[in-house]
Amino acid sequence: MSVLAQLTAVLGDLVDTHPAALEAARADSSGHAATGRPLAIVHAESVEHVQETMRIATATRTPVVVRGAGTGLAGAANAGDGEIVLSTLRMTAVREVRADDLLAVVEPGILNADLNRVLAPQGVWWAPDPASRDISTVGGNIATGAGGLLCAKYGVVRDAVLGLDLVLADGRLLHLGHRSVKGVTGLDLTSLVIGSEGTLGVVVGATLKLRRLVPGTTCTLTATFPDVRTAATASSAVTAAGIQPAIMELMDSASLAAVHALLGLPAPAAGAAQLTIQTDGPAAGVEAEAIADVLRAHRGLTTVTHDADEGERLLAIRRSMHPAMASLGTTLIEDVSVPRSAMPAMFDEIARIEQRFGISIPTVAHAGDGNLHPNFIFEGPETPPLIWEAADELFRAAIALGGTLTGEHGIGTLKRRWLADELGADQWELQRQIARVFDPLGILNPGKVFVADA
Amino acid sequence: MSVLAQLTAVLGDLVDTHPAALEAARADSSGHAATGRPLAIVHAESVEHVQETMRIATATRTPVVVRGAGTGLAGAANAGDGEIVLSTLRMTAVREVRADDLLAVVEPGILNADLNRVLAPQGVWWAPDPASRDISTVGGNIATGAGGLLCAKYGVVRDAVLGLDLVLADGRLLHLGHRSVKGVTGLDLTSLVIGSEGTLGVVVGATLKLRRLVPGTTCTLTATFPDVRTAATASSAVTAAGIQPAIMELMDSASLAAVHALLGLPAPAAGAAQLTIQTDGPAAGVEAEAIADVLRAHRGLTTVTHDADEGERLLAIRRSMHPAMASLGTTLIEDVSVPRSAMPAMFDEIARIEQRFGISIPTVAHAGDGNLHPNFIFEGPETPPLIWEAADELFRAAIALGGTLTGEHGIGTLKRRWLADELGADQWELQRQIARVFDPLGILNPGKVFVADA
Repeated sequence: MSVLAQLTAVLGDLVDTHPAALEAARADSSGHAATGRPLAIVHAESVEHVQETMRIATATRTPVVVRGAGTGLAGAANAGDGEIVLSTLRMTAVREVRADDLLAVVEPGILNADLNRVLAPQGVWWAPDPASRDISTVGGNIATGAGGLLCAKYGVVRDAVLGLDLVLADGRLLHLGHRSVKGVTGLDLTSLVIGSEGTLGVVVGATLKLRRLVPGTTCTLTATFPDVRTAATASSAVTAAGIQPAIMELMDSASLAAVHALLGLPAPAAGAAQLTIQTDGPAAGVEAEAIADVLRAHRGLTTVTHDADEGERLLAIRRSMHPAMASLGTTLIEDVSVPRSAMPAMFDEIARIEQRFGISIPTVAHAGDGNLHPNFIFEGPETPPLIWEAADELFRAAIALGGTLTGEHGIGTLKRRWLADELGADQWELQRQIARVFDPLGILNPGKVFVADA
Repeated sequence: MSVLAQLTAVLGDLVDTHPAALEAARADSSGHAATGRPLAIVHAESVEHVQETMRIATATRTPVVVRGAGTGLAGAANAGDGEIVLSTLRMTAVREVRADDLLAVVEPGILNADLNRVLAPQGVWWAPDPASRDISTVGGNIATGAGGLLCAKYGVVRDAVLGLDLVLADGRLLHLGHRSVKGVTGLDLTSLVIGSEGTLGVVVGATLKLRRLVPGTTCTLTATFPDVRTAATASSAVTAAGIQPAIMELMDSASLAAVHALLGLPAPAAGAAQLTIQTDGPAAGVEAEAIADVLRAHRGLTTVTHDADEGERLLAIRRSMHPAMASLGTTLIEDVSVPRSAMPAMFDEIARIEQRFGISIPTVAHAGDGNLHPNFIFEGPETPPLIWEAADELFRAAIALGGTLTGEHGIGTLKRRWLADELGADQWELQRQIARVFDPLGILNPGKVFVADA
């Protein structure tokens, strides 16, 4: 019996072979698509469905690509020829919310924003806030180890998960972690699975660590600088001054110009870069004034508003970055991260790479944590070799500055060929062997993350 | 050439075979000692010394026990017959402090308190604060995934490490993690090594995530309750009210009576239990008053002081717990952790176990994070079977309440026989296989953590 026939025999209508659905599962939001088409999508609605799928996959040695909402930016959930897509998008239950213990137990398919809508009436929230939070799943956030705008103050996914339920390649179910705040029993497999991009198992449940909603209102600052280096230096100075904003976003001149054009706003001054900063909590006003002092001392033309709506309007400029880039052509959104003090040096490197390759690399940064998103723009669906060459220089520069290839998007297919450059050959091999312990047959997301000679 | 001769040929005077030193390396602060004596202690002073030792150990298949200050409470650093003790106690350098990037790069042998003395003039600190901070090393804190009193507010070791330098069993050096705040490149081996108790490699360097020193003064509260259940319920109510103290410690009546006797203070009322709570930061006073309201609503006889010295005097009662226990007999300090709302139920279980086994189990708790330290007292050096039976019930009760065997001390030798009970057989075997990827010959801390039929 064929793999498809076995799946259908056990899972019936949950097995989807509509050509349009299969075609959609080839790509994520990176725009990059797998070669060929997957053989089926299984729309799992329960842990048992996931286990059944994995048992058939193991018995038939069929590759499985776990997929949530498909909003990834590294090609990790792209499914190609002969692969089973295991979708957890229908597993959306919030099994439990314990505001007193600051934890929630959820299924992986719930959208980040939907979860926070469920949590808010109880006075709690789950802090990771990727820019995709309205459209990305908690399971996907866990699989990539997602970050977001609020990370410097409130942490990333790794700081916000107590335990995971994981189905292994052969269908066995493991319960990793625990419900207590502290715990050092055995190896920390919960942390190991976070950010493992579907290579170790299928996350079918998560015990999340919650925070209390932050009391008080927010203050929002914008500051315009003559150039991006000055803006980056100012943002590093804010961190060095010991003030912790909730959000600190930097836009370089090309980004700023593109967004202003998209929104029909008057063009900013040539070369001008901008910081948008938000403070929150009981001391929001005091902190905003202290930050304004730092920004003005660094030649920033600075405004402060205590009005939440006006603050959202100011942040909307930053949030319009992706559509603005899309309006310019096909985009490869990069994701390097460096120590905060190295941000000015990283912007110097970006300027050097622009010069050398004769291209523009509009860049935004989560400046509070040193995570930069340089955008490479080109025509057509395929990233041209010249762009990859420029990206190669970008990655090497970030690593040389003590940083990393990817701050929050992951390796997937798009960065697998640089993974060994950062890890070193020994660590790369060790990591691959660890993945093989979870998945001895190599059926979980083959071709992603750990690929020799990629 | 014998192993000892090989070590001496390469490492000379760093190889220590003094009988008293070898004898001391058999035990940690748990009191439990390994069988037999190790063959030598290598006092590594550099990464190269560690690598040389591991190369010889691998070539000769000699077991290696990595050891810092020997303050562990689970027997993980105890070295026995035929084993090499690899001491990192002389590797104490602080290689780098970057207050602007909130990071420090240190060697593993520096004491936690010594590190914080180096950091303080730059306005930063490393938050993990095990009760042993004056005598325990940063490397040991990392090996156990240590916690402490301040964890509920400021996090545990796992929240405070960006990267690790790790020497593998065969002497190769790996650099795990990075210097940036964010990073999701490959599997998170940094988190995997934290809490791995010497089974995966030798930590020879750590890039630590620092915090700014907390501005303002502290406020300290003590509240006395008629019984421990009422005190536990009050502490859970503080957490549930959304107030975050820096420290929240609970002492049951037996603990409180023992400490008062040790310090020559008037005996507390029969059955009385006590909470000692500290708030810090700019809102310390407001938070202390809010907490006092909660405590009084739960029948706590409550006092609040804004005087820092008086606060330290009040906390000294809690800090005298270990000497008070030692004055009663030999102590097995246990370390279960449960969700905060389950603390009253856990105290019920402890009372039940006391009753059933006819013993007293004086218990203190880091009530802010649900981590309890029940103390079993007995005569003589060996833990009697009856005590292990009682501990067995304690562990099972904690796990049944959604908690874990060990919140911050680790598995070591003392809890290895319960590890599979919590992890399940499948996860236990998976973890053991992961350890084997790092250490194929099984020479790193054999007999600890993962031991079949222990």
